[in-house]
This record gives sequence, structure tokens and C-alpha cells, in this order.
Amino acid sequence: MSSFIADNACFAPLFEDTQISRLFSAEKTIEHCLAFEMALTEALGDHGLVTKDVAEQALDKMADFSPAAEALGQGSLADGVPVPEFVRLLKKHVGAELMPAVHMGATSQDLLDTALVLTLRDVSAILVERMGILAEKILMRYEEFGSKPMMGRTRMQAALPIMVADRIYTWLTPLVNHIEDLGPLRTKVEQLQFGGAVGTRHALGDKANDVAEQIADRFGLENPIKAWHTMRSPVVAYGDFLSQITGSLGKMGMDICLMAQQGVEEIQLSGSGSSSAMPHKQNPVLAETLVSFARFNAVQVSGLHHAMVHEQERSGMAWTLEWMILSLMVETTGKALLHADALIDQIETIGIGNG
Amino acid sequence: MSSFIADNACFAPLFEDTQISRLFSAEKTIEHCLAFEMALTEALGDHGLVTKDVAEQALDKMADFSPAAEALGQGSLADGVPVPEFVRLLKKHVGAELMPAVHMGATSQDLLDTALVLTLRDVSAILVERMGILAEKILMRYEEFGSKPMMGRTRMQAALPIMVADRIYTWLTPLVNHIEDLGPLRTKVEQLQFGGAVGTRHALGDKANDVAEQIADRFGLENPIKAWHTMRSPVVAYGDFLSQITGSLGKMGMDICLMAQQGVEEIQLSGSGSSSAMPHKQNPVLAETLVSFARFNAVQVSGLHHAMVHEQERSGMAWTLEWMILSLMVETTGKALLHADALIDQIETIGIGNG
Amino acid sequence: MSSFIADNACFAPLFEDTQISRLFSAEKTIEHCLAFEMALTEALGDHGLVTKDVAEQALDKMADFSPAAEALGQGSLADGVPVPEFVRLLKKHVGAELMPAVHMGATSQDLLDTALVLTLRDVSAILVERMGILAEKILMRYEEFGSKPMMGRTRMQAALPIMVADRIYTWLTPLVNHIEDLGPLRTKVEQLQFGGAVGTRHALGDKANDVAEQIADRFGLENPIKAWHTMRSPVVAYGDFLSQITGSLGKMGMDICLMAQQGVEEIQLSGSGSSSAMPHKQNPVLAETLVSFARFNAVQVSGLHHAMVHEQERSGMAWTLEWMILSLMVETTGKALLHADALIDQIETIGIGNG
Amino acid sequence: MSSFIADNACFAPLFEDTQISRLFSAEKTIEHCLAFEMALTEALGDHGLVTKDVAEQALDKMADFSPAAEALGQGSLADGVPVPEFVRLLKKHVGAELMPAVHMGATSQDLLDTALVLTLRDVSAILVERMGILAEKILMRYEEFGSKPMMGRTRMQAALPIMVADRIYTWLTPLVNHIEDLGPLRTKVEQLQFGGAVGTRHALGDKANDVAEQIADRFGLENPIKAWHTMRSPVVAYGDFLSQITGSLGKMGMDICLMAQQGVEEIQLSGSGSSSAMPHKQNPVLAETLVSFARFNAVQVSGLHHAMVHEQERSGMAWTLEWMILSLMVETTGKALLHADALIDQIETIGIGNG
Repeated sequence: MSSFIADNACFAPLFEDTQISRLFSAEKTIEHCLAFEMALTEALGDHGLVTKDVAEQALDKMADFSPAAEALGQGSLADGVPVPEFVRLLKKHVGAELMPAVHMGATSQDLLDTALVLTLRDVSAILVERMGILAEKILMRYEEFGSKPMMGRTRMQAALPIMVADRIYTWLTPLVNHIEDLGPLRTKVEQLQFGGAVGTRHALGDKANDVAEQIADRFGLENPIKAWHTMRSPVVAYGDFLSQITGSLGKMGMDICLMAQQGVEEIQLSGSGSSSAMPHKQNPVLAETLVSFARFNAVQVSGLHHAMVHEQERSGMAWTLEWMILSLMVETTGKALLHADALIDQIETIGIGNG
Repeated sequence: MSSFIADNACFAPLFEDTQISRLFSAEKTIEHCLAFEMALTEALGDHGLVTKDVAEQALDKMADFSPAAEALGQGSLADGVPVPEFVRLLKKHVGAELMPAVHMGATSQDLLDTALVLTLRDVSAILVERMGILAEKILMRYEEFGSKPMMGRTRMQAALPIMVADRIYTWLTPLVNHIEDLGPLRTKVEQLQFGGAVGTRHALGDKANDVAEQIADRFGLENPIKAWHTMRSPVVAYGDFLSQITGSLGKMGMDICLMAQQGVEEIQLSGSGSSSAMPHKQNPVLAETLVSFARFNAVQVSGLHHAMVHEQERSGMAWTLEWMILSLMVETTGKALLHADALIDQIETIGIGNG
Repeated sequence: MSSFIADNACFAPLFEDTQISRLFSAEKTIEHCLAFEMALTEALGDHGLVTKDVAEQALDKMADFSPAAEALGQGSLADGVPVPEFVRLLKKHVGAELMPAVHMGATSQDLLDTALVLTLRDVSAILVERMGILAEKILMRYEEFGSKPMMGRTRMQAALPIMVADRIYTWLTPLVNHIEDLGPLRTKVEQLQFGGAVGTRHALGDKANDVAEQIADRFGLENPIKAWHTMRSPVVAYGDFLSQITGSLGKMGMDICLMAQQGVEEIQLSGSGSSSAMPHKQNPVLAETLVSFARFNAVQVSGLHHAMVHEQERSGMAWTLEWMILSLMVETTGKALLHADALIDQIETIGIGNG
Repeated sequence: MSSFIADNACFAPLFEDTQISRLFSAEKTIEHCLAFEMALTEALGDHGLVTKDVAEQALDKMADFSPAAEALGQGSLADGVPVPEFVRLLKKHVGAELMPAVHMGATSQDLLDTALVLTLRDVSAILVERMGILAEKILMRYEEFGSKPMMGRTRMQAALPIMVADRIYTWLTPLVNHIEDLGPLRTKVEQLQFGGAVGTRHALGDKANDVAEQIADRFGLENPIKAWHTMRSPVVAYGDFLSQITGSLGKMGMDICLMAQQGVEEIQLSGSGSSSAMPHKQNPVLAETLVSFARFNAVQVSGLHHAMVHEQERSGMAWTLEWMILSLMVETTGKALLHADALIDQIETIGIGNG
């Protein structure tokens, strides 16, 4: 339970996206780290770095490894990452004889960055689905109300009449573009992290790339020729993408707030928020929240860019900063899509007259 | 459970500050909101806006009001704030006859901003205590090792010899200054929020200021002549202050990271972090984390400044953004002070030779 | 002459990139705006919106139009953009009879965003050339020193030996990736802006798209089906790209600063900076500056994301913010590449011993 | 001529504040640096660190020292700061015999940070004057239109009627507070920087503090007991203050944009901006610009907080970053005050009816 507003139950439903936050949970961290270690052990066996027999026995043991997250948390406090404690416990769990089959040639970054990539893959699947549904709903509004007139406004001043379609077009098009952008971005991001202590894969000698290849295959990831953990631009590009989504939704939210004003009344929303002092008011809460989320991500994205200054073979400073920011951006983006979806559902009419 | 890293139990002890996060919990929100409503009801009775008798009966009822945070959370999703639902439930709880004694002349902002101010007062007490203890510990190191020589380094290059005291002085002085800065800052921040629907206190007529005065007195807050909720510079100044603290600690953390490097070895730390691949390594984890936290707050502070653009009599957009940011900064600052404290304890020696 | 540090001649050579800043000069603004107007006039004539003869006469006049930048500047103060004054002066210049052939169906955004796109095209050509040269130079260092040993360092602590090639690989690879990224990014960005008063191209009726097509052809730009000016994600993506470049160079700069420390001495640089107090010192000035520039862009990029919240058919607020930020990022990126180039030239050796 | 928009003459009058930018010019850098050196030389003579006679002869020579800014700029490229070249040229100018009287015990930071402080003192004088005038003008509007009714709006929805005075109060009060805040802030900021090579004042032995005291007296600055150059919180606090001013003005700008909308019409402005496509439109350009400037500074302020992570006895990285940001914030704040002033002058009426 942190101090983040999504953890305060009095506010949580406005901020939390449980489908997303589950992907960043301790359970998922442990699941991904263990999956990495098992894929590694299997590959070590298959490529003769330990005997097949030892690998298999180790895999049997590993299959029921279930460390206490709290112990790993204490490890993080001491070591900066949960992995050393995870590996200590895992080695203890498999026993002294099978230890050589565990974590050979790997390091913290391999587990955690591969876990990140697997998480972002799940995130991408959620985002693309939500963007698709949202785009279809917006398209329906476009078809329903598009031919109605409304006033075009530039610099917040009435300019010339436009069609409702013209306004909605600017909400829909960016979403379609973001969906298209995700494909190439996923290719960049969904890369196995495997490099060992200093990122060079040297501990496994000439078998290193075969082992890496096999792990990558198992996860359906690309296998770059080296560890990428000090070169964070794909992760940063992912954050840029998230903030572009919320920025596009923020434009829609701002438009709807402005359209819902008395004296403008270009949109009718059902089910808007009430006020404790003025029960008659209908506040466009979700539209406002889209703007807040756009600005939140616009603030956060800066932190990811700072985290590119990743000194030497691993930066504790930069990596820790990235952790504090990226997951917040993902959840905010996921929730923005849910809010946008609900907001579109609230639209009763757009534009003036009956078109 | 959000996606913020402090909520992932595998990492939490490196990020969470439970003494702080409790201040931002649903329990505290409810406690402060109820305290506000009770102070208001009492003042309404005392100033004849309802009869004393009605006020007292209402206060009796209110005393055991204990709404479900989840219900308030659903209210936030609908209304953007938990207060309308809180007030609905509270009015239902006291019953139709006593309703006039509840929430008269108040609005969401009055409850939540006063709650914020009460929370920040508790935060300030924690911060000043931690800064004081930390400053004393640093002073002890100053006295212990200050007379030892070390190399002064400018632009990351050896320059001329200095004393250890010269380096430590730059860690200690800002803390002392921050402690001094807190006094005037608290005066700015610890202001009752009370304005009613549009911030003007008009619903209570000529009794408004007396009512406000009494509520302020009860909480030990200042009573400004009007609601301040659209003028956020004191809140922003609080965030600036938090980020200045973490910035100063970040400078110390960066120094210690640089001092701990092989080939430099100007500091010896006990109990530093281990590596999953290299058990021999001693990583200055807490020092690195101080830099991460400084950068995290340096990123966040921008969002608070954006939240000053608070349109008209209340901005949902800007206020929501502030909520998402300020509590994160507070917890990060609190935790940075705890880490700094532990880091100072880890120091075995600073400087070269025996001084 | 602004207060930006690059305008202070005592500091300018450390910050200014005259090849870039020329692209953002008043001369270029005027040149691009006039080119747009002439392409439009020609297309109006070709598609019968004015007679060919009128168009040709107007083009003759327009060819020697040379407004005073200062007058346009005064126009910006009054109108928020220089275009209304530009158009007034241009219409006056061609005379009353030819006025119908000028600016028909166009608006400020069409001129300035098309000018932006043409500028960014020139910027891209410069960046790709500089990145290519830089990558080659780094590759030469890779080949020259790559087989020498050095200490791998994680969390700023000595970890295990690596080869110099391993370190340099992390400087080179991102550059290669950035060069590859630029192709698809250019396709997104190099889009004609043409929409008229409210972005709908309606003023030219059924000839609008033919006119747009012809203008786009003349400039070698894509012709989207509508104006894109309220959907800024391609511009934001360009800024993201710039900050990713400087982030990658910042990682190299930070590495080199750390490598140049006494006690580490993994790199020898010629021609480093001197100190006014300590003539013996050699400061890795350019390496430090790369880190400063990475952080500068990491700060700025946030502003571009905020500028996505572009209300209605045109946001003065958001657009103005973008103007203040994007050109600073471009120049900083250009200069970072020049500094990186000079820094690589300063390298006398990397690593320990003779390899 | 940089790529910053204020350097493009087609846009400059919307962004440049020549009274401010002059304070950050090369001329001022040279003037302040020379003033520092002369005050130092005088103090060296007065305290017997050189003979009075040598000091006086040196001062005579120094009085007509006028280095070419371009040469200093080349020095900055080589050294990261102009001071080493400035001192080389100054020493050459006074001649070998008088050299001991020049720059003894001083370093780059002493000159440039003292120059910064002197510049900020001039800035403060300008800001306080402009804020005072602006506050008075707003107060006049308050008195003129305050009693007229208008609609209070919360969450961008009509709420309950307020008086114009209620709205204007939220524009005026923050300004008054900012003026009050400046006093204590100036005390923090207006501190002599004097520390020598590593900030310890050790080169001047037991005369160091007397020399510092005399220099401080001459400039009317405080004399802290040591150099403060690695402890940047006062500079950061200054930036925070600037951004708070623009944030408060941004709130006013946003309000005025919203008030000027068709359908709302709560304000009438004269002389608003025109459109190239729609000559009938009146755009509230200055009000929009205030919002842009608020967001610009809200972005920039983050960079100053990052620059607090100032490693060891001097950080080239952090200091350079601060240079790139602070002056931009000052000019933007100065210009925002000018725009706000002009905007208030444009107000013809506020509120509905005749009050």
C-alpha cells in the first residue's frame, strides 16, 4: 500500500486499472523470474553446460519453487534488486548438488529486464485491444453524428462552421495511428535480455548465443546479439508511445470539456458527476480525467529519458528511476483508455440540431 | 494495489515509507473529512445557523459514522471526488431531520483540501524530525572524520586536497537550511480551506467568517479570508521544498557513489548490496537510490507547477493531476530521508589514512 | 538576442549550432511561407480556382516579395502568429486585383506547419549525416582499441573484466538504431499541412484535394487527406527521437567522464578543458556537456507531450508551447552530435595496457 | 542567434524581453566578472596579500580591460567556462609583474556564480516592480467591475453566481503573495560566491574571510562562511518562484480565454489578435500566451531540480544544465508579466450587465 492515489480506496476506481497493475505485481515478478531461470536451466542442459540429467532434476525442483515476496523485498532493500535473494533461495531450494544448473551465466538484469519485456508484451496486447474497441466506438459516433453541424473553434474562439465529423476525425485518427505504431515498437521492445554479470555473455563461452537463442525461442522473443540493458531507447520509446496515447486522449477529453460548457453545449453526456454542494450540476468527470492523465504522462515521460543516462555496465540509479516511472505510465495509459471508452458511451448527442 | 513499484512486495522495502503512506490512506481521508464535517456542524450550532440542539444531535450521530471506503471510491469514479457520496451517506446516517446541520455551506474542496493540509502538517512533523536526526548523524561523521584529508574533485577530476569536513559540509548545510525553511512554509500551507460551492463562503451569509474561524481554531490552522483552492502556490511550494530535500540528498548520494569507486576509495561502507552474479561485490545501493529519488522528484515537481493552471472556480483537471503527484513526492522524500539515515550508519570511514 | 545561453557570446560556442539555428531563422520562416503561398497560387491557377493568367501575374509579383521580419514580429505580438501580417503585406504587394490568387483556402497553420515540416526535413538530413560520421568514428575506435581489456563496472563498482569493445558497443549500437529509426519517422513527419480556416479544406470545394496534392508534390511531401495540425503526435515523436539521440550520447558522455577519473584512468583525452585556478587539470568538458544536453532534452521532451492537448480546431496555447521547445531540442541535439564527434577525436587511448 | 523562438524576428516580440535578456548578455558577463576581479584585487591589497601599490596599479590596468566576447566563447568551448580564458587575457593585460594581484584565491565558480547573483538581483528588482504595477492594475479592475455578477464555474460547468470580484481576487492574491515571498528569497540568493579552486577559501589562508567580507560588502551581498556553489537550493528556489509567478498568471490567462468564448462572453477585450483566414475573429492571444508560458516554466523547473545533483566539489554537468534553463525561465517570467500587464489593459469590461 503506497501513497499513490490509486492505493487510497476512497479514490481508487478513478485511477486503478487492475488488469494492468496485476502485470506489475510481485506474483508476476516471481513468475517471470522463475520462468527465466527454468528456461535457462533447460538450455544449459540442452547445450551441455550441465548434464541433461542435472538440468532435469533441477527443473523438477524449480517447478515448485515459491519464494515469499516479502523475503525478496528485504533482498531488494539490501541489494537494490530482488534477484540476489531470489537466486539464493532458489539455489537453496534445489540443493547444493543441483546448484550449478541454476543461474549460470545470468545476472539480475537478465531476469528483471526479460520480465519487463514479457510484461510489456502483455501490456501491448491489452492496449491494442482497448484502442481497437475505442476506435470502433468513436467511429460509431462519427457515423451517427458526423453529418451534424457545429461551430469550429480556433484559439478558443468561434471560427467557422464545421461538421461534427471534422471534430471526431481528430479523436479517431491518432488512435488508428497509435495502433499501427505498436507493431514496429513491439519488435524493438520484445527482445530477450541475457548477458550475465557485465552484459557480455562471456560466462557461457561459445555456447552463450545458443543458450540465448533457446531462451528467446521459448518466450517468443527476439535474441539480440548482446545484452541491451544499458541501451534503454526501446523502453523509452515505449514510454513515449504511452504518453502519445494519453496525449491524444487528452485532446479528446479537453474538447469534450469545452463542448460541455453552458453556452457552448455541443455535447450531451449522460451519467456525469455530481457535486456535493450543487446536486444539479453535471460534471464531465471522465473527460477532465483524460486531460489530467495526459499531463501526468507528459510529466513522467521526462523521467524515462533521464534514465537513458545509464553509466557503464549497469546503472543502479537510472534503472531504479525507470522502475518508479514506467509502471505508473502504463497503468495511467490503460486507465485512460478505459475512461475514454466509458466517456464515449456517455455521449448522448454531439452537435447542434438533428443533422 | 497499484502498479507503482512500492506496491510490488518484491521491491517494496526499497520504496515504501509506511509512516508516510498511512497519512495518505483511505482511513485518513475519511477521518479528516469527518473531522471537518463535525467541526463545521459544531460551528453551525455555535453560530446559530442551526440550533445548538440539532447540532449536538447531529454530532452524536456523526461520531459513529464509518462509511465503506469502497463506496466512496465508486463515488469518486462517478463524481471525480469522494465527497458527494460521503455527504450522501453521512446525511443518510444522521437522518432527514438532522440533515440541515450537515455540510451546510461546504463543498468537496473544503473537505479534501483541509484534509490535505492536515496531512501535510503530519508530514512536516515527520520530515523535520528525520532531517534533524539525519543532520545530527552527519554532524557526528563530520566531527569524527572531518580532519582527514581527501582529494577535492571538480568536474570529476582530481583538483586539490581538501579535508573530509569540506565535503561533508555540503551534505549537512542544505539539511540545516531545509529545516529552517520549513517554518515559514508551514505557515503558508496550514490554512483552512473553506469556501462552499464556488469558494466565496456566501451560503453562510454574515456568519461565514465566524464559522470558518472556529473550524480553523479547532484544527489549529490559519483562517484566510477566502477559500484558497484555486491558488495552489503554497501546495506547489511544498512540492518544491520536497524536491529540494531529495535534491540535496541526491548530491550526497552521488558523492558517496563516486567515493566508493575502486581507484577512488574515499569511503568505506558496511552492509552494501550484493550481486546475483558477483557475490564479492559491494554495491552502494542506498546512495544510488538517493540519486534516483532526487531525479524522481525533480521529474514530478514539474507536474505540480502545471497544476497551478487551475481554471475558474475549480479545476477538476488540475486538481486530479496534483493528487497523482504530490503524495508520490512526499513518500519519496520520506523514504529518501530514511535511506540517507541508514546510509550514514553504513559509513565506516571517510577520507584517506587516519587523519 | 534572447536570454538563452547560446546567445551569450561568452558561452555561445559551447551551445550554438549555427547550421541548425539558421533553419529556425526569420529568413527561413519567410522563405518557407512564401514558397507555400507561391505553390498554392500556382495550384489555384492550375485547378481553375483563379485564372491561369491571374495566378501567373501574382506569382511574378510574389517572386520579389521580401517583407521586413520586424513587421511580421509585430504581427506575431498582435495575432499570436506572423501569418496574418505576412498575408496582409503580401496581398498589398501583389495589389488589389491579384489578391484573390493569394492565400485562398489557407490559414496560419498551413504556412507555419508546412514550414516546420520543411525545416525538420533539413534537420533530418543534417542529423543523419552527423550520426553516420559519428558512428564511423566510433567504429574506428572500436576496431583500434576494442581488444584491450578494461574493468566492467556495474552500479559504479568494479565487477568483472570486459573488453573495450564491450563498452564501445553500447555507444555505437544506439546510434545505428537511431539512424534506422529516422526513415519511418520522416514518413510520419513530412506531411503537407493544408486545411484552411478550420482544417477542413472546405474553402476550395471539390478542388481542395487536387490543390493539396499539387502543393505536396512540389515540396516532395506526403498529402494526408486532411489537415493534421491538431494531431501533433508525429511532431512529438520527432522530439522523442531527438531526446533519445541525446540520451544515447549522454550515456557515452557519462561513461567517458567516469573513465577519465584519476584512479580509474581508462581513457586518455587530448585537448581537454583547463581550469582558471588549477592550470594542471584536464577536464573532460565535452563529455560532461553531453550529459547536460541529454538532461536538457529529457526535460524539454515533457513540454512537447503537454502540447498534444490541443483544444478544438487550433490551440494557441499548445502550439506556442511547442514552438518554444522543439527548436531548442533540435539545436541541442545537433550540437550534441558535434560535441560527440569532437570528443571521439580527442580520444588517445581507451583501456589498459597495449591490448 | 540561437534557434530559440525569441531569436526569430518573425516571432520575437511575442517572446523576447529585452530588459531581461540584456542582463544575461555577454556584456553583463564581462562586466560582472571584471567587477569581481577588481573587488578581489582591491581586497587583496587592503589585507596585505599583495602590496597596496601593486593592487592599485593592477586596478588601474584592469579598469580598461575589455576582452572580446568571442575569445571568451572559444574559451568556453575548450574549458566549459569562459573564466580561464578571461583570466589569461586579464593577466596578460595587466602584465607579468602585476599578475599576483589578479584572481588570487579565486576560481571560475566564484566569478560566474557571483555574476549570477548580481544578475538575479537586477532581475528581482524588475520583477517586483512589474508585479507591483500589475497588481495595481488588477486592483483597479477589481474595483471597477468587482460588483458585477457573473457565473461561477467549477469543473468547467456553470455552478452558482459569483461577483466579478471573486474571480479577480484569485488573480490578484497570488501576485501579492509572490511579492511578499521575494524578500526572504532574495536574502537566500544574494550571497557572494567565493571559495577558490575547491570551494574552501584555503588559498588565502587566515585572510580569506576578511577578503570575502570586503568583496561581499562592495557588492552589497551576504557573505556566507564558505562557498555555496555545490549547494544550489537557493538557485532552485528562485526558479521555483519564477514558475509560481507564471503559474499564477497562467491561471488568469486560462480564465480569460474561457471567459472570452462565444456563449460565455464574460469579458470584452480590445485589440485582440486577428486570423489570416478569418478577419472577423478576435483571438485572446496574450491570455493564451500566459498559459503557454506557465507550462513552459513548469517544464523547465524540473531541469533546475535535476541540477541539484551536483557531484563533488563542482559539477560541470549540473552547472551547464542550470545555465541552459534558468535564464530562459527568467525571460519567460519577465515577458509573462509584460503580457499580463498589456492584457489587463485590453479589458473593456468583465461580467454581465452593468453591475
